[in-house]
Amino acid sequence: MDPLKESILTQIIRKRPEESHKGTFGRAVLVGGSQQFGGAILMAAQACVYGGTGLTTVISDPVNRSALHARVPEAMFVDWHRSDWIDSVTESADVILVGPGLGESKDNFDLLQRIVTHQKEHQWLVIDGSAITLTAKYPMTFPYPDQVVFTPHQMEWQRLSGLPIAEQSEAHNQQAREKLGSIVVLKSHRTQVYGAQSVENPLGTPAMATGGMGDTLAGIITSFLAQFERSEETVHAAVYLHSLIGESLAKDRYVVLPTQISDALPRFMKQYS
Amino acid sequence: MDPLKESILTQIIRKRPEESHKGTFGRAVLVGGSQQFGGAILMAAQACVYGGTGLTTVISDPVNRSALHARVPEAMFVDWHRSDWIDSVTESADVILVGPGLGESKDNFDLLQRIVTHQKEHQWLVIDGSAITLTAKYPMTFPYPDQVVFTPHQMEWQRLSGLPIAEQSEAHNQQAREKLGSIVVLKSHRTQVYGAQSVENPLGTPAMATGGMGDTLAGIITSFLAQFERSEETVHAAVYLHSLIGESLAKDRYVVLPTQISDALPRFMKQYS
Amino acid sequence: MDPLKESILTQIIRKRPEESHKGTFGRAVLVGGSQQFGGAILMAAQACVYGGTGLTTVISDPVNRSALHARVPEAMFVDWHRSDWIDSVTESADVILVGPGLGESKDNFDLLQRIVTHQKEHQWLVIDGSAITLTAKYPMTFPYPDQVVFTPHQMEWQRLSGLPIAEQSEAHNQQAREKLGSIVVLKSHRTQVYGAQSVENPLGTPAMATGGMGDTLAGIITSFLAQFERSEETVHAAVYLHSLIGESLAKDRYVVLPTQISDALPRFMKQYS
Amino acid sequence: MDPLKESILTQIIRKRPEESHKGTFGRAVLVGGSQQFGGAILMAAQACVYGGTGLTTVISDPVNRSALHARVPEAMFVDWHRSDWIDSVTESADVILVGPGLGESKDNFDLLQRIVTHQKEHQWLVIDGSAITLTAKYPMTFPYPDQVVFTPHQMEWQRLSGLPIAEQSEAHNQQAREKLGSIVVLKSHRTQVYGAQSVENPLGTPAMATGGMGDTLAGIITSFLAQFERSEETVHAAVYLHSLIGESLAKDRYVVLPTQISDALPRFMKQYS
Repeated sequence: MDPLKESILTQIIRKRPEESHKGTFGRAVLVGGSQQFGGAILMAAQACVYGGTGLTTVISDPVNRSALHARVPEAMFVDWHRSDWIDSVTESADVILVGPGLGESKDNFDLLQRIVTHQKEHQWLVIDGSAITLTAKYPMTFPYPDQVVFTPHQMEWQRLSGLPIAEQSEAHNQQAREKLGSIVVLKSHRTQVYGAQSVENPLGTPAMATGGMGDTLAGIITSFLAQFERSEETVHAAVYLHSLIGESLAKDRYVVLPTQISDALPRFMKQYS
Repeated sequence: MDPLKESILTQIIRKRPEESHKGTFGRAVLVGGSQQFGGAILMAAQACVYGGTGLTTVISDPVNRSALHARVPEAMFVDWHRSDWIDSVTESADVILVGPGLGESKDNFDLLQRIVTHQKEHQWLVIDGSAITLTAKYPMTFPYPDQVVFTPHQMEWQRLSGLPIAEQSEAHNQQAREKLGSIVVLKSHRTQVYGAQSVENPLGTPAMATGGMGDTLAGIITSFLAQFERSEETVHAAVYLHSLIGESLAKDRYVVLPTQISDALPRFMKQYS
Repeated sequence: MDPLKESILTQIIRKRPEESHKGTFGRAVLVGGSQQFGGAILMAAQACVYGGTGLTTVISDPVNRSALHARVPEAMFVDWHRSDWIDSVTESADVILVGPGLGESKDNFDLLQRIVTHQKEHQWLVIDGSAITLTAKYPMTFPYPDQVVFTPHQMEWQRLSGLPIAEQSEAHNQQAREKLGSIVVLKSHRTQVYGAQSVENPLGTPAMATGGMGDTLAGIITSFLAQFERSEETVHAAVYLHSLIGESLAKDRYVVLPTQISDALPRFMKQYS
Repeated sequence: MDPLKESILTQIIRKRPEESHKGTFGRAVLVGGSQQFGGAILMAAQACVYGGTGLTTVISDPVNRSALHARVPEAMFVDWHRSDWIDSVTESADVILVGPGLGESKDNFDLLQRIVTHQKEHQWLVIDGSAITLTAKYPMTFPYPDQVVFTPHQMEWQRLSGLPIAEQSEAHNQQAREKLGSIVVLKSHRTQVYGAQSVENPLGTPAMATGGMGDTLAGIITSFLAQFERSEETVHAAVYLHSLIGESLAKDRYVVLPTQISDALPRFMKQYS
């Protein structure tokens, strides 16, 4: 399996065009954050904003509004009980991330399904966390499966693909991903990305093994898809940079907090643009 | 069109007089922040406080109180359902900013109209965001139009002036602004300010093209009008400094967050006072 | 009038005794923060905690709890509707600050009066902001007036003393303060402290003339009284240090935010202990 | 009594294994934070997350959710009125900390008892603050007392052991701790840890004597037990590091805030791993 290389960053992270406005850099919508897991969607939102997305909107439980704005006032907020607002916001989105801290209730499923079935022709979806589990439990048809990125860890991949962890070999994973027709970011000690190509991330450090790191990765992938070309290479760049920053920060930290990765994003991206 | 120059900063940013108190540096009132767009008014408030305003009060939906005080305890807060408090606070204001994250509901319009029709002889208004759209939709008479600053982006200017974006030439814009009788800060790649003079901002970077940057600019304009001479040159200085800080921070950042501009304000202003 | 000198800092800020616990450094209770002025009590609380107080409790409107804990989790919180909790907390306090952002309603007055009339023999009170105005409006008897510090600005001092601002000469102020029998910190361009001695603060900068600066001063005075000897010299030290830090930060800032003073407190205090 | 030595840190803080995931570094659950003392559980949570715990969940009053996520979005949150959620979260925990800001009501006791009586065979409990007082008042049987760490200050130890402070000699303390069969961290000027061995912490500074410092220590102990071997030596390492960081920060600070200790944890731990 080919290793990802640093050159993917300079390839994908373009210099921002001089004549531009915030719309030029995409509209991202992030859906998640139950009453129990609100921090997850907050961390995804910070990653998405600090990654350079033009406009970021969070759809979440209203108990999470105050903390979101205390941390990331740059993001807009939609109460997920307001289905009228949800439709108007998701319709114009370039990329929709569903899953960080979503939960697995009936309401959560309905919201996921509403977004999936309304996927637009030029719209990409990133399916993370409990949204993966829900997708595995209640199979649904994605209108544009090749514009969908799944970001499972190994157990979630088992649920989604039916492959027990011990049988998650490269060949099996590639077969399963072809059946899905989507891009799969299989998170582990050495994260692998399955798509037209199969690549492995040579970076990563155990200092990054802490709650919220996956939510942050999902936010960076969403941010990159919102502003750069929508392709699997862009997903590669997001995966690589997330680990590169983590390794860099881990040089003098025993544990790297997810929010520290996001804080560092603008400076690291500058070096590769 | 004349370019703005750095000298506008030393011209406007005065050394604070030794014998002074917070009242010397103006009373600003900021109106906006619905349940969906609360971050906008928070960012405007931070810009206003960090710009050196003596007293800053935010009038907003109560769901935004906690996040405001977590970020900017220096600002006071008025629940926008309390019309008795609104009147007493706006009456003594030197400058009132209406619009960041306001929304376009009937209630929002009523609040805007209440403030516009009560404009005092020495009071300046800054009309931003959805307040511009509301002004375009339901024309209203400003008691002192020459003490009003509109801060539209091109689409909002189209709504307000009737000029399609393709026809927003300098001559047309100047005509439209004369009809309004106000100052117009037309935000774009190279922001232009129309008033008695027409000037263009030579600064700005695509790293600043991200949600909330306009709210922050509106907050700086408000802050400058609150404490310096109330004139179009003061608006020029605010526009110029906003971009100057953005360019400076963009030297090592791929994207500049609006709140980072505000954080940097006190140090940059010091250099020009 | 004698100027305050730097030596007051080394005289008052003692080296903390090796054998000690948080109780050694005093119990402070801060009362204030209405729904409109919550930021004021938050800023006072931060100053009180960062000044080295052993235990700090805030009594305020419950809408202010979240923002307080987001900024200063070190402080405890009591909902000011819970009179049972208020009594148990104030009873054991060494110093009680009343006023930052309190408001002037009947409920506010009742709370102030409850605290004033229950002043204990070894308990000091700091009366700030709207609590001064309430005291002026509805005169009340302090059980131990010589253990009370008033921190008016000139207009509040006019209300409290009956002296119009133009007549607030040193002689008149000293007379008025003798009638009160308390310590008066008269805040202005050059703050004066009236007590057994009359002293003037030679420090201070217009960069400090911004909303919340007085709340922060009140918090530092409270903190110093909680942990050092309870005397007017301790008030002098608090006043002097507040301005010393402000001047220092103003060297490269056009405006100094109140919370920046508090952030800097532990490092400045270290230099004088 | 043997003094703790710096070597305990290198002995306990292991290099994180390359092949790992967040589960490798333990599941911690923290229970506390009433409406009055919410900051305590927030500070414990920050210490637990920044100490490197894989997954941290806070069980608390819902009024504390917003401030927790504004400060530590990495932690998950469970409303302590939801007994169904509490059971599912505590069941899978490796370590449960009960006590920071818990309060002493009947409901608080019921929650404590529920957790104590359900202690699993491989589960450690850390009993702090008001949970110690409740344990003293209403004795309960711990299923695995040797997997329980009590963290009393001297007055709480008096309540728990029946030993008046004046009689808390090493011999008496050791006897009392043997009766309990647990580990006792007796906090004071020189903290002592009683277990199979009795050791004394030679570090500590009066700059650490401020509200919340004990909550932070409890969070670090919990974090270390969650990810390192569950043993009394691990408790020793947590106690030693907490004071080591405090002493280091106190070199240029008059008072060290608890949250500053937590912020510094990842860099200090790196030096010893």
